[in-house]
Amino acid sequence: MNKTRIAILGYGNLGRGVEIAVNNSNDMELVGVFTRRDNLRTVSGTPSINVKDIIDYKNKIDVLILCGGSATDLPIQGPEMLADFNTVDSFDTHAKIPAYFNQMDEIAKKSGHLGVISVGWDPGLFSIARMMFGAMLPNGVDYTFWGKGVSQGHSDAIRRISGVKNAIQYTIPKREALDLVRGGTRPELTTRDKHLRECFVVAEDGADLDKIKQEIVNMPNYFSDYDTIVNFITEDELKANHSKMPHGGFVIRSGETSSDINNVLELAIKIDSNPQFTASILVAYARAVGRLVKEGAVGAKTVLDIPLGYLSPKSDEDLRKNLL
Amino acid sequence: MNKTRIAILGYGNLGRGVEIAVNNSNDMELVGVFTRRDNLRTVSGTPSINVKDIIDYKNKIDVLILCGGSATDLPIQGPEMLADFNTVDSFDTHAKIPAYFNQMDEIAKKSGHLGVISVGWDPGLFSIARMMFGAMLPNGVDYTFWGKGVSQGHSDAIRRISGVKNAIQYTIPKREALDLVRGGTRPELTTRDKHLRECFVVAEDGADLDKIKQEIVNMPNYFSDYDTIVNFITEDELKANHSKMPHGGFVIRSGETSSDINNVLELAIKIDSNPQFTASILVAYARAVGRLVKEGAVGAKTVLDIPLGYLSPKSDEDLRKNLL
Repeated sequence: MNKTRIAILGYGNLGRGVEIAVNNSNDMELVGVFTRRDNLRTVSGTPSINVKDIIDYKNKIDVLILCGGSATDLPIQGPEMLADFNTVDSFDTHAKIPAYFNQMDEIAKKSGHLGVISVGWDPGLFSIARMMFGAMLPNGVDYTFWGKGVSQGHSDAIRRISGVKNAIQYTIPKREALDLVRGGTRPELTTRDKHLRECFVVAEDGADLDKIKQEIVNMPNYFSDYDTIVNFITEDELKANHSKMPHGGFVIRSGETSSDINNVLELAIKIDSNPQFTASILVAYARAVGRLVKEGAVGAKTVLDIPLGYLSPKSDEDLRKNLL
Repeated sequence: MNKTRIAILGYGNLGRGVEIAVNNSNDMELVGVFTRRDNLRTVSGTPSINVKDIIDYKNKIDVLILCGGSATDLPIQGPEMLADFNTVDSFDTHAKIPAYFNQMDEIAKKSGHLGVISVGWDPGLFSIARMMFGAMLPNGVDYTFWGKGVSQGHSDAIRRISGVKNAIQYTIPKREALDLVRGGTRPELTTRDKHLRECFVVAEDGADLDKIKQEIVNMPNYFSDYDTIVNFITEDELKANHSKMPHGGFVIRSGETSSDINNVLELAIKIDSNPQFTASILVAYARAVGRLVKEGAVGAKTVLDIPLGYLSPKSDEDLRKNLL
């Protein structure tokens, strides 16, 4: 079997996660890491190549995995790269997905490529769960809980407060709310009912801790609608205990198949590394892209458009025998 | 939009569940229930038709949902019906699925139909979970737990014991085992570690209860490898408290993305009615069959071959906007 030739664009946490996942896949070969940086040394020794030379690799890459961020990188890189490559990306700005899809679809159809967008766990795995659960229990209610995990946006918001040197914020689903939903009663839950926010803050020397705490817990949009716990710690403690990137979440659907016959479906994930798990999903979809392209597929696609069997290196016969 | 015309073959618990689910679907129309029985009155008043006349309906049915059992009905009905109709079935004899698939695929390709086999929750929803989880965490271990729910086979085995009038057996996953797996340690679990068996037995008047109990707990294959609880109750208690058909289960995969970075993915279901939930899944796949046939699909397929978006009556745009 010819190996699927993969390349990575962007070498942050996600790019490094993809590097690991591709190197662990026997059916794939990592051609290179494309970056704006010169002389980048990759963890595995994979060649790093300046992105301005990427067009020279047009016929040497089967699937390019875009590892930039959704805010500024992907809206530029996605369309640009899809003109010359088959791509997979993790575009996750939920509200902008329909417009991004349409733009990518048009480019892909013009250039004869395939671009799978919005791959990861949410959007991605969680979207698949919502899709299946909704189709299998049409008369029901969806609940999504996130965490326990770091919210980058909330951590950044704390860091902008005067007197704060560093901070990290965990979003934590409330056990009571989860149990209530699992019980099948289909409760109406407020923002405060569902999640707790816990902050670990390193203050500047001599800062007014109580003032910082009040600014955090009363911050509109970010914290004022939640129960928020604020802990002050040292920079050393922050580094020692809060530098990992764990995350998790729950998609639950509770619904009736007939009167008084309730059913609860749940997907739960608990991951030690948010970027590594996201990367692992991107690589599974890169495999699907490799196969779909051989079958002549072009256009933009999402996780809802691709048969799950395409994610596996195993044959269909093997999957039927062992997974069904 | 033209409604998808559905018919049901077989009117046991599963067939009645399909009747409910189709009647709750605005994009579907229930043409009839085909049965060997004459003068059957359906719950919703849908016409019942003798199965010997089914060929007259060849052009009046888009998808025929086969609601017979896997032991004796489906191995006959599946191939027979696929020669003239597009079908969905819940064939669940795991070991025989590859051979059944091949047989159905050959017939479907000859007759120009589409047959989706082995739909339900296991095989079906659980197969999808194993497929996704394995592709997203290739380096890991799978665990499946069933219950709490009635095992028909184990209940029947108890009923065959002399002195037993009636009985029902629940398979119950052990909480400690679940918690251990969720903790990410990837334990090796024995049969006894994973599930508990609880039996509710109605004895004949004057029967030797202790003898019955010993026969149950020591029964090879069925009970001797498990911790088994035996409760003796009256026929009235059995009817009052144990006539529902709840079930449930868990598919869990625990795996590393790199050294010491563990991730746990879990699908959990808790259903009040096993046949109604299975029926609801069959109907979602019948919708997919209707759409796929319009696109010209022929052959046998499983849940691993069908993009999940096909399960929904909503448009792709709508799904992208609301589920991703």
